[in-house]
Amino acid sequence: MGVADRLLARATQIGASPQAGNVTLVGAGPGDPELLTLKAVRALQSADVILFDDLISPEILELARREAKRMLVGKRGGRKSCRQEDINRMMLDLARAGRRVVRLKSGDPSVFGRAGEEIMVLQQAGIPVSVIPGITAASALAAGTTTSLTHRDCAQSVRFVTGHSKRARCPLISIGAPSPIRRPRRCSTWAVAPPARSARD
Amino acid sequence: MGVADRLLARATQIGASPQAGNVTLVGAGPGDPELLTLKAVRALQSADVILFDDLISPEILELARREAKRMLVGKRGGRKSCRQEDINRMMLDLARAGRRVVRLKSGDPSVFGRAGEEIMVLQQAGIPVSVIPGITAASALAAGTTTSLTHRDCAQSVRFVTGHSKRARCPLISIGAPSPIRRPRRCSTWAVAPPARSARD
Repeated sequence: MGVADRLLARATQIGASPQAGNVTLVGAGPGDPELLTLKAVRALQSADVILFDDLISPEILELARREAKRMLVGKRGGRKSCRQEDINRMMLDLARAGRRVVRLKSGDPSVFGRAGEEIMVLQQAGIPVSVIPGITAASALAAGTTTSLTHRDCAQSVRFVTGHSKRARCPLISIGAPSPIRRPRRCSTWAVAPPARSARD
Repeated sequence: MGVADRLLARATQIGASPQAGNVTLVGAGPGDPELLTLKAVRALQSADVILFDDLISPEILELARREAKRMLVGKRGGRKSCRQEDINRMMLDLARAGRRVVRLKSGDPSVFGRAGEEIMVLQQAGIPVSVIPGITAASALAAGTTTSLTHRDCAQSVRFVTGHSKRARCPLISIGAPSPIRRPRRCSTWAVAPPARSARD
């Protein structure tokens, strides 16, 4: 997004009606409703419309305001799914109609969740957009197995790698490859998201 | 921890009194109390003792049970701090005295939080230990700046690197170095924790 586009988007926001809607990208975490943040619950309880992913559990949706309209826009690898363009258009149309939209995504929206594309579309259209972070799957897995991802005796970094690229190719990683950290024996922890679980690419 | 140690730890737990205490490592997230999980708040509200890090905000401590004893065990780089051995001993002594102990850590306990060492000490002593994940700083920063850490047009992975090693050395990273992912143009996002912020090494 260039400087001119940003200025234009900002100017559009200034002129917007006080009734204008907005979109909040909310991280639902790994599935357990207890792992939602207080802020995420608050967003669910003040939403008019919730566009939710396929992996969101019914227990999480139950936390939302009773009157909120819940719409499944999930994508799964190899199945008939909602297209990203359609999701973008729905968010734009609903916000322009003055709705408070929650885009509910499993895990953390900023990690393998297409948040970048959705944010850009909304900002370019001058729709107010914000993000509420969630517990990403690797953190939940580490907690569930009572494990550290970065024990200081053996790791100075941790890396999350998607198992499913934009072109549906699995990235070929060599776990034992020399690390860009210059002391090869103090290597990274790796967490690889499997390709089959969802279409999070 | 060897097989014999694990069996011994398990046997010790079987023989433990029903009044035996426990330790829960709780992630407090980046500072905003609204970014605690529901599970973390529940743990704070049922704790007898809270051992908390230096970076935990007073607003977060206010969420705890009124009767809970709050003990600062913070460490900061270059300042007089509580030693890790002392924290370990306090957790052991309190749990053995039947207390429900919350070890409250900023961010996510599994990412640069010495959780590995604390878990090992407790498991070896047969003390029940569990972890509640938190929002790690990189996720909060991405959300706060409305940014994705892994826009699928340019990143297939994200890597968190500590700026402070066990021996107080900053790891030398070359951001532009070839990635172990075999398509060098599809590189990683990097998030580096600065060394001066805390003693999280």
